[in-house]
Amino acid sequence: MTPSFSIPLWTDLLAVAIGGVQGALYASQLRERRLDLLGVAIVGTATGLGGGLLRDIFLGVPPVAFGSNWYLPVAVAAAIVGMLLQQVFSRLDFTITALDALTIGLFGAIGTSKALSLGLPVIPAVFIGTVSAVGGGVVRDLLLGLPVALMHVGSLYAVAAGVGTVLLVAVERFGAPIQVAAIVCVVATTAIRLLAVRYG
Amino acid sequence: MTPSFSIPLWTDLLAVAIGGVQGALYASQLRERRLDLLGVAIVGTATGLGGGLLRDIFLGVPPVAFGSNWYLPVAVAAAIVGMLLQQVFSRLDFTITALDALTIGLFGAIGTSKALSLGLPVIPAVFIGTVSAVGGGVVRDLLLGLPVALMHVGSLYAVAAGVGTVLLVAVERFGAPIQVAAIVCVVATTAIRLLAVRYG
Amino acid sequence: MTPSFSIPLWTDLLAVAIGGVQGALYASQLRERRLDLLGVAIVGTATGLGGGLLRDIFLGVPPVAFGSNWYLPVAVAAAIVGMLLQQVFSRLDFTITALDALTIGLFGAIGTSKALSLGLPVIPAVFIGTVSAVGGGVVRDLLLGLPVALMHVGSLYAVAAGVGTVLLVAVERFGAPIQVAAIVCVVATTAIRLLAVRYG
Repeated sequence: MTPSFSIPLWTDLLAVAIGGVQGALYASQLRERRLDLLGVAIVGTATGLGGGLLRDIFLGVPPVAFGSNWYLPVAVAAAIVGMLLQQVFSRLDFTITALDALTIGLFGAIGTSKALSLGLPVIPAVFIGTVSAVGGGVVRDLLLGLPVALMHVGSLYAVAAGVGTVLLVAVERFGAPIQVAAIVCVVATTAIRLLAVRYG
Repeated sequence: MTPSFSIPLWTDLLAVAIGGVQGALYASQLRERRLDLLGVAIVGTATGLGGGLLRDIFLGVPPVAFGSNWYLPVAVAAAIVGMLLQQVFSRLDFTITALDALTIGLFGAIGTSKALSLGLPVIPAVFIGTVSAVGGGVVRDLLLGLPVALMHVGSLYAVAAGVGTVLLVAVERFGAPIQVAAIVCVVATTAIRLLAVRYG
Repeated sequence: MTPSFSIPLWTDLLAVAIGGVQGALYASQLRERRLDLLGVAIVGTATGLGGGLLRDIFLGVPPVAFGSNWYLPVAVAAAIVGMLLQQVFSRLDFTITALDALTIGLFGAIGTSKALSLGLPVIPAVFIGTVSAVGGGVVRDLLLGLPVALMHVGSLYAVAAGVGTVLLVAVERFGAPIQVAAIVCVVATTAIRLLAVRYG
């Protein structure tokens, strides 16, 4: 019943890349923080890698990001893309929000799937998926010295990720392949997050 | 000489629950932070689970909180109880302080016992017990963006937990059962912390 | 080709001690933070141990600092030395900077060597060395509630550590003993950091 399942490398790298772009975009917009380019790159890289790192530390397994030469260059390159995007476009609020929504969907699905495949009970699996989803943003805010966005009125990050990961577990327990369950999770999380921003 | 000893589930859950109530009470009182209910629940849950998580990460073992379906619901339920208590009573300073003192006593005893049972030398065992004791509060303050209470004048958290955990190791090394040593630790830590608040 | 190599205990303790002195000196100078002596000792200890802890958590191995009775007393003693130095001398800016530069050099070399010896690919090894180098300072700033120095204009910490750890990997891959490579790393990192402060 517990799926033996490994996350495809490209999926994981995609989540890292989108998180990295989003983190760098977010950090570049904080003009009053006086971040230099290096600071923006560090924040972007940490945002991209943070969710997966927290996930693996909480799972008690060696972080997958340090087992290959791929993750770090992808995160750094994504952070640099984020910085360049910021310089090209003047207003990117919607882009940041959309990327953010997609990142939490992807990380939620990857984190929950990985936890289930390691044999964790469903409640911790949902929790670890949710932490994976919001972890990059928490690391970003701590490094920037900002109030953790997750904590404040109107964010609903954790709700979107939580609903998505609960759906993943439910769909998988009803017998669907984990890949299908993961897609349901990504779509639901991203949609809820975007609707929350639109009407919230 | 090293005790082979597993923490009873109910003890661990009790510490998590008290920590969760305390964290949520603390967060609810910070009106100017404009936390929504979800934010308060997250802070309470993180306070309840934070000390144990830091303990297990520092010990290099998979976090016990994610090995069963019990910890997360207990922490979340405790956080909700904390929120409701806050709405029922107008002033809960003493309750928060007393719960806080009991939490650090329990987590100090559990953390030190677990470290000893895994074969750690006594000095790291005392340290990890102390970190377990104060870790929930540190996580709480970081998430809330507050100055870490541990660092500032008059807190004496770490002293209370440190004395308690040193006593635990001493009593256990003199041949007492670890359960007795743990009770000494809880009583001593809680008493020192309450006396420090009363006369400090 | 991958070196089988264990860090000599004295090297690791030296890095911890210098980090501890530096952290305590730094914290003592922040008069407006109203840290008591205990707070300064905690910050010093955390600065000394933080880089190595992050390194071992990221490597997925039990933290070496908790496997012996040496690390914690050394870190605490170093923090106390840092406090006393602060009370003896009125201006210690250069001393803090120099100790800081040496700390990041040592931790960078130790972290990268350890990662290589555990079989990590070179890019994560360089990253983990760099995180070891700057981690103590990040922990220090988070505990103090300060903006993370790493993020802000002109710090160049990560660059100094990054160049040093890349050199270590390059020199080692060219066939030099890891000890030689480590010395190159320490000298390069310390020199770059000091030059950056001098001319930056």
